[in-house]
Amino acid sequence: MQNFDYQTPTRLIFGEGVISSLPDVMGEFGHNVLLTYGGGSIKKLGLYDKVKELLADFAIFELPGIQPNPKFNPSVIDGVRICKEHDIDVILAVGGGSVLDCSKAIAGGALYDGDLWELISNNVETTAALPIVDIITLAATGSEYDNDGVISRTETNDKFSYMNDHLFPAVSFLDPTYTFSVPKRQTAAGCVDAINHTMEQYFVEDSTLLNDGFCESMIKSLIVNGKKCLDNPEDYTARAEMMLCCTYGCNGILALGNSESGWPCHGIEHALSGHYDIVHGEGLAIITPRWMRHILNEHTLPRFVKYGVNVFGIDASLPPYEIAEHAIDETYRFFESLGVPMHLRDVGIDDSRLAEMAHHIAVNEGLEDAYAPLSEQDILEILQASL
Amino acid sequence: MQNFDYQTPTRLIFGEGVISSLPDVMGEFGHNVLLTYGGGSIKKLGLYDKVKELLADFAIFELPGIQPNPKFNPSVIDGVRICKEHDIDVILAVGGGSVLDCSKAIAGGALYDGDLWELISNNVETTAALPIVDIITLAATGSEYDNDGVISRTETNDKFSYMNDHLFPAVSFLDPTYTFSVPKRQTAAGCVDAINHTMEQYFVEDSTLLNDGFCESMIKSLIVNGKKCLDNPEDYTARAEMMLCCTYGCNGILALGNSESGWPCHGIEHALSGHYDIVHGEGLAIITPRWMRHILNEHTLPRFVKYGVNVFGIDASLPPYEIAEHAIDETYRFFESLGVPMHLRDVGIDDSRLAEMAHHIAVNEGLEDAYAPLSEQDILEILQASL
Repeated sequence: MQNFDYQTPTRLIFGEGVISSLPDVMGEFGHNVLLTYGGGSIKKLGLYDKVKELLADFAIFELPGIQPNPKFNPSVIDGVRICKEHDIDVILAVGGGSVLDCSKAIAGGALYDGDLWELISNNVETTAALPIVDIITLAATGSEYDNDGVISRTETNDKFSYMNDHLFPAVSFLDPTYTFSVPKRQTAAGCVDAINHTMEQYFVEDSTLLNDGFCESMIKSLIVNGKKCLDNPEDYTARAEMMLCCTYGCNGILALGNSESGWPCHGIEHALSGHYDIVHGEGLAIITPRWMRHILNEHTLPRFVKYGVNVFGIDASLPPYEIAEHAIDETYRFFESLGVPMHLRDVGIDDSRLAEMAHHIAVNEGLEDAYAPLSEQDILEILQASL
Repeated sequence: MQNFDYQTPTRLIFGEGVISSLPDVMGEFGHNVLLTYGGGSIKKLGLYDKVKELLADFAIFELPGIQPNPKFNPSVIDGVRICKEHDIDVILAVGGGSVLDCSKAIAGGALYDGDLWELISNNVETTAALPIVDIITLAATGSEYDNDGVISRTETNDKFSYMNDHLFPAVSFLDPTYTFSVPKRQTAAGCVDAINHTMEQYFVEDSTLLNDGFCESMIKSLIVNGKKCLDNPEDYTARAEMMLCCTYGCNGILALGNSESGWPCHGIEHALSGHYDIVHGEGLAIITPRWMRHILNEHTLPRFVKYGVNVFGIDASLPPYEIAEHAIDETYRFFESLGVPMHLRDVGIDDSRLAEMAHHIAVNEGLEDAYAPLSEQDILEILQASL
């Protein structure tokens, strides 16, 4: 087991109706609030009006229009400017992972006087950030329980993780009923995202019985509950369990003491959505099974066998390679059953920029040190197999 | 799924050699340190000298002699007095769960001006406690990652949980090598304790696929690694995984959104160790299988079946009651295989005070509201079956 230094200080307030304590919670942090959100979904939900009503005694400044794959320009830049101009005390992020990721970059940037893009792209070590409270309306990224935000810069096709321990949300409100109206496409993509987060921590050199069991439990629950959420979008129990699963995706609790995997599927997908602005979970659905097939070899075989037997219940007495191939097929078929696109061509990506992306990934993502090391050629082959 | 409000802010610093960062960590909290510990084991380990060497620049005041089932009088009373007399900034607890539990009561008491026993026995709501840093030398209670301390008052045979959110340790150092010299008896009792913590959260009315999987993974890991620790006390990997498992036992992460179980085995065991000062984990080993057999009925059967199939791999096609009985037998046999006493008579308890204890439990532990409700008569029958 590897040494580790771990802390997740975020408070989770979970369940139907919990938003009623929002004024008390916000009052702990101050009076001037930056309210960040995306498009119109929080208005359709009635959540925008509800928040304004609950926070009638606060001074609220707004940053709307945060896009999926949140953009440095204009969202982060505008948000930081508002924070500085209006002495913002606390950011209230209402929406999905993109709104929250963007808010983390703003929270760090608001207390930073240097170059903003350098802060994010170089993960500049800082000593403070504004506190963040969030109300999550989409189960997917786990940003509500981690210290990381992924920010895109369109001009350069860059997509960077900005991460430090001041970026844990102070409080995350998780009301599963807010996810009832999430469309099938986003529900499916969120399910794939959370499954892949787990796989990125499961396919490693050094793990434990405990962590393997935690990860297998996550994936099994997401398979069952992801399907239920699609079949019956207002199934509270399924939406709630999926929401809880997603929350554990990225804060490390599933893999304390495991060796690093290098998060290869995320490394590859970030280039896809950085270059083509596709839905992150859909990119992961396409890449994951091709990455699995590419890295299957004598050395990785035992992990695939364990995954196949424990997650999909494949007969452990079959020959190991048969179990592994079957496990990859089952993974593919499950993603396909959610209705997500399973080919790059389905999301508007042809072969014209594969080599460029493979190079970008090889230069930026450090995947030569991944659990199964990936050269630029390996990455290109995975992308080609995904067409 | 039930609503919940959850936070575990403790920082875990885990692995061999991590104690080297102790001076930096302690420096965040202040200069005046109350060092709490038990008997001679931390001196035999060399840990006492190491701590004194690392903290040469701090003012250290000592509270030694904290016993298992830590006592209100004199330990908590003395500790609080030292804190007040010497303006203690931070408590450094070095030892097992008892030292840490006692330190939590001291941390709360140090900033409280009312009656100390009332603070603890009534869980008086306070707004602050001294910060606690701990170095754990025994894998068992999970006190290093929760907000709870169990304190005994010998004069009245009372044993109370003192619990509030200011009692989470600020930082827990977990170096598995410090557990290499833990005797077989304590290693086994710690393993039973952690398994029972998990069972207390698994045998509930309302759970999730995810939480069930987390709990089953915990128990399976503890069964494998507990045995390995007994067979080879210096097996770093086994000691480390057992240490990590124990850490998750009591902070709720295994059961977020589950309904309450009432922690019945702990309720019963606290009376045993309150009246007879026995080893907590040994009391649990005796009580748990008898409690299981007592509560097995049509309503609880499905939980037993799930437990038996998923933890012990019992053939799911057998008749349900057969699976359940087999699961109880397997639990009993596993505890027995660790070498722990399996009868009350083995730990010096005869039938003379069973009725008195059953009454004490019925009055104090609220087990009529447990997952499987227990009346005073039920409790007496469980105790009688445990003789």
